[in-house]
Amino acid sequence: MDKLPSPLFPHRHLLGIDGLKADEISALLDLAEGYVEQNRADDKKRTVLRGRTIINLFFENSTRTRTSFELAGKRLGADVINMSVDGTSIKKGETLIDTAMTLNAMHLDALVVRHHESGAVHLLADKMNCAVINAGDGAHEHPTQALLDALTIRRRKGSLKGLTVAICGDILHSRVARSNIALLNIMGARVRVVAPRTLLPAQIERLGVEVFHDMARGLADVDIIMMLRLQMERMNGNFLPSLREYFHFYGLDQAKLAKAKPDALIMHPGPINRGVEIDSAVADDIDRSLILGQVEMGVAVRMACLDLLLRTDEKRNDA
Amino acid sequence: MDKLPSPLFPHRHLLGIDGLKADEISALLDLAEGYVEQNRADDKKRTVLRGRTIINLFFENSTRTRTSFELAGKRLGADVINMSVDGTSIKKGETLIDTAMTLNAMHLDALVVRHHESGAVHLLADKMNCAVINAGDGAHEHPTQALLDALTIRRRKGSLKGLTVAICGDILHSRVARSNIALLNIMGARVRVVAPRTLLPAQIERLGVEVFHDMARGLADVDIIMMLRLQMERMNGNFLPSLREYFHFYGLDQAKLAKAKPDALIMHPGPINRGVEIDSAVADDIDRSLILGQVEMGVAVRMACLDLLLRTDEKRNDA
Amino acid sequence: MDKLPSPLFPHRHLLGIDGLKADEISALLDLAEGYVEQNRADDKKRTVLRGRTIINLFFENSTRTRTSFELAGKRLGADVINMSVDGTSIKKGETLIDTAMTLNAMHLDALVVRHHESGAVHLLADKMNCAVINAGDGAHEHPTQALLDALTIRRRKGSLKGLTVAICGDILHSRVARSNIALLNIMGARVRVVAPRTLLPAQIERLGVEVFHDMARGLADVDIIMMLRLQMERMNGNFLPSLREYFHFYGLDQAKLAKAKPDALIMHPGPINRGVEIDSAVADDIDRSLILGQVEMGVAVRMACLDLLLRTDEKRNDA
Repeated sequence: MDKLPSPLFPHRHLLGIDGLKADEISALLDLAEGYVEQNRADDKKRTVLRGRTIINLFFENSTRTRTSFELAGKRLGADVINMSVDGTSIKKGETLIDTAMTLNAMHLDALVVRHHESGAVHLLADKMNCAVINAGDGAHEHPTQALLDALTIRRRKGSLKGLTVAICGDILHSRVARSNIALLNIMGARVRVVAPRTLLPAQIERLGVEVFHDMARGLADVDIIMMLRLQMERMNGNFLPSLREYFHFYGLDQAKLAKAKPDALIMHPGPINRGVEIDSAVADDIDRSLILGQVEMGVAVRMACLDLLLRTDEKRNDA
Repeated sequence: MDKLPSPLFPHRHLLGIDGLKADEISALLDLAEGYVEQNRADDKKRTVLRGRTIINLFFENSTRTRTSFELAGKRLGADVINMSVDGTSIKKGETLIDTAMTLNAMHLDALVVRHHESGAVHLLADKMNCAVINAGDGAHEHPTQALLDALTIRRRKGSLKGLTVAICGDILHSRVARSNIALLNIMGARVRVVAPRTLLPAQIERLGVEVFHDMARGLADVDIIMMLRLQMERMNGNFLPSLREYFHFYGLDQAKLAKAKPDALIMHPGPINRGVEIDSAVADDIDRSLILGQVEMGVAVRMACLDLLLRTDEKRNDA
Repeated sequence: MDKLPSPLFPHRHLLGIDGLKADEISALLDLAEGYVEQNRADDKKRTVLRGRTIINLFFENSTRTRTSFELAGKRLGADVINMSVDGTSIKKGETLIDTAMTLNAMHLDALVVRHHESGAVHLLADKMNCAVINAGDGAHEHPTQALLDALTIRRRKGSLKGLTVAICGDILHSRVARSNIALLNIMGARVRVVAPRTLLPAQIERLGVEVFHDMARGLADVDIIMMLRLQMERMNGNFLPSLREYFHFYGLDQAKLAKAKPDALIMHPGPINRGVEIDSAVADDIDRSLILGQVEMGVAVRMACLDLLLRTDEKRNDA
């Protein structure tokens, strides 16, 4: 691993969007495009990562994301092993660093990590010789979500540059929001956040966003509306709104959607809380809702990430 | 998936036995025969489903059935991914339909589903572009169990036609019974059910069975005895018999077995409750008990199901 | 499986170290050496066990050991399936023997078993036609741990013969200690155990060890120090020492280490309890601590075990 596998993507790990350049993101999305087609064929399997070992280390449950990464690794020909925090020696008191060192000694090629604490993935990456991919750490980053969102938008709008994107809802607890704000700024989009004050982090403006507390104004003339899950499980009593009231003010329904551009598109990282942050009819609008497309792009983007971080040059020609 | 993969089995899904024709069942069992031999060899692997993705989505625990399907898929060369309800986003409030749509967006080739509610698998199948196989839904159907039972019988008796089969015990909660009653009738066997009134569904006669409440009379001159698990976990206080009393009246022991034909064979879908619905000596009778043979046939039958539903024509010649 | 696959290792199962000969152990370690190199390469995959089925049946949680076996099997090209006791039909009341018979009917090539009761693995092996590997049974044996420890030592010291090895700490609950005592005696090392009386089994001397209750004397001039995890979860109130007091008397720190030979090496089966049985600085001493090397050797040794027990002659030449 002394030599980085790709000149297009000169990074050993994918820990966040922060630190990536626009052309690196574009190269990754270009590569992912090819995998979108592959995944639609009967034969979804390639051998570019044959002989490689990937471990999905999930300290938080997430069947969706874990399955998406597992599919991505297997479709590239790698061996993929799942480790969930249930049943790990973490319970026996092992430290996170010891877990990292132990896995490192098994000679992995990639470690995909989800952890409930911001920064835990960086801590692990420092100890690993293999590529580490952040599959979500606390309220910090979830880079593959932002990349799949970017691919989804790019396929519909051609480019992210110059678009106005409103990210709405529980910004405070959302790593999806943080990664998307970073990526959209890098790619030249204009970013708004729309949320009640209680669901916004302090000094959010510093991230390069316009702040709105009112959906009608925040959605005015936007190209893309990204709704976020209301992460009730992360709210330790600080803010537990009435869901009905939350939906009234911040849930995306036809009336609020009418404020956006006529061809505005709707996104959500899933799983959706129907009737809480999004109306069912809006979520299921096949012309404007990109929610299922995001899931599809997720597998392709994760394949591209694994490919760029792991593929060696001699394998690069025999996909 | 517009073109059905096999003219022998013109179905997109396997949701139940109900709706299958005798020659379709025979074709499936014929195909399974070949896999029985393959599974006994050192090299158990084929490539007919290479590049295909199968997800085992289990909302109820069943290591046996899940393992059998996982083996079947892997031995055909597919990538197999397990999703159990523990740790899925179902817990975060996602609906069954949203789960289906999400998995569909990942471009699966087959989804194997077990669910605790009758009909849930049909609901899922409506939303999926891939083949859906019912691995047990509530008290409704468990078609691969009936097919493996049929293969087990056919290998010992040559044919199902004209045999008399007694299905005994907890018919009320048994999807195994329902699927077997359907299959045995299609294949020309005579079916009896033997159970206390409290463990029989209303109007069971309409399914084409003879009803008995007494084991001595129900087993008289039968060729096959199918015992069922007493599904105590499904009895919400309605009927919780004394196990000793239940065994006395409905447990299969040597005395009751003597009423059947001298060469009558004993079956059970497993796992068995020794001393509850079946005597240990009877369960372990190597000449007459087919219980372990059923497990073996299970893997072969599931390979045949996956093969018939997924294999494309061009792959059909290179098994 | 009538013919044993290897004349070098004339055993059908690996249930314990007890019963192995020195040259069999050496042959296994020699084979493992090759896999150490393979695991350090980009392409870690071989096809020697292609078409074979391995099940990891874990009745106790152990992500480390399960992952190590899963990696080993997959890197040899086998299909590997995990079954953990959570969600198995064991919960529905199935006996251990019935579980064995059921898995046997699925035609496995190897069953890797961890069980909380001593002897359970032998009981299973009696019923299986495939190779059974003990991945730890109660306080009885954990043979692959002893083998990986032997490989780790041999690579640093050239040979085990004539070395003095001190095994320290919770001997009473340790299958690691039992397997290591057996192996080290077979290979001609001198074995000491160092522990408080309450953590030693009765008549431990009969296993061919010298007994010490004092670390300073027990570690005097030893070549290898094997620390054990204090298995608090196995102590049913019999002996729950103050951890601070335990560390004071039996924890390995620089002062106690100074009693051993200047080039003495430190081992631990992991996961380590830092500050309980071992000081952090000692555990992390890159010159003398072999702890991470043990993890690395674990995968290679398990590959060698699977290879020796499963590979057929015709495959032996096409690794």
